[in-house]
Amino acid sequence: MEQIIYRPIGIIHTPFHKLKGMPIQPGGAQGVGGTIEIREDCLDGLQDLDGFSHIIILYHFHKSRGFSLEVIPFLDDKPRGLFATRAPRRPNSLGMSVVELIKIEGATLHIMNVDILDGTPLLDIKPYVPDFDHPGSCRKGWLEMRSDISACIRSDDRFNGDNS
Amino acid sequence: MEQIIYRPIGIIHTPFHKLKGMPIQPGGAQGVGGTIEIREDCLDGLQDLDGFSHIIILYHFHKSRGFSLEVIPFLDDKPRGLFATRAPRRPNSLGMSVVELIKIEGATLHIMNVDILDGTPLLDIKPYVPDFDHPGSCRKGWLEMRSDISACIRSDDRFNGDNS
Repeated sequence: MEQIIYRPIGIIHTPFHKLKGMPIQPGGAQGVGGTIEIREDCLDGLQDLDGFSHIIILYHFHKSRGFSLEVIPFLDDKPRGLFATRAPRRPNSLGMSVVELIKIEGATLHIMNVDILDGTPLLDIKPYVPDFDHPGSCRKGWLEMRSDISACIRSDDRFNGDNS
Repeated sequence: MEQIIYRPIGIIHTPFHKLKGMPIQPGGAQGVGGTIEIREDCLDGLQDLDGFSHIIILYHFHKSRGFSLEVIPFLDDKPRGLFATRAPRRPNSLGMSVVELIKIEGATLHIMNVDILDGTPLLDIKPYVPDFDHPGSCRKGWLEMRSDISACIRSDDRFNGDNS
């Protein structure tokens, strides 16, 4: 199949310089702030975004190398199919998080509840719209029994592709 | 900034062969079924996914050409900043939808409430987990006054990059 080529529209800055110890989802990153620096030639696209309390950010797991189709997720001790997890090592290392948008100052977006590595290339921003993005009642598979998945779970080394 | 290269992990099939008349979000696609054909060498990654009632699919708007940083969205009559909209013509033409997963048969995922063009290349699948993906109470900017955004709104030609 054909190649699809993207270019970052910005860079995400967070307090997490190493994968180890990072929260593994926004739930574990409550109160952790970060910023996004948007590319100069994309700034006009930010109009009206400040009306939204939350945004969807799509980014590239830039430290991820290779992948396995079966992984033991942080939240489990059994191997699971990769696509049933949010592990960063994927055939296409695309990350997606819903974060709180605090304010926009020029090219800088201040965001909250950030579970992302510092220096991560940003690919897209979309407004979070519950009518589109929240389907109401859900089954959540192997995570169903975990009542604590919003707690402060931190990453270890297992998804580290290159020891950085 | 550097290029990021992805390769589709599958193809999305839907009843929508033309952009015109397509629902513009899953809300407008209630009851519309589709399928995803997953690449043979990615099948092992589908284990455990059937426990989830909803999945996040990330895909490439393959018919989208070029972009403008200011657009008049389907749901409005005023120009809005591109990143405050879900328009398909974006610097990186990444699409994201939350769809219902009905069943998995071999390499075929049967999905429901599909607002996607037939033949769209799939880049990633993630389980939808409300604890991660639904932030609770939200402000939804220029969409705040629209109580009808889940209704059957259909696309016109405005985001058509190449008349197909």
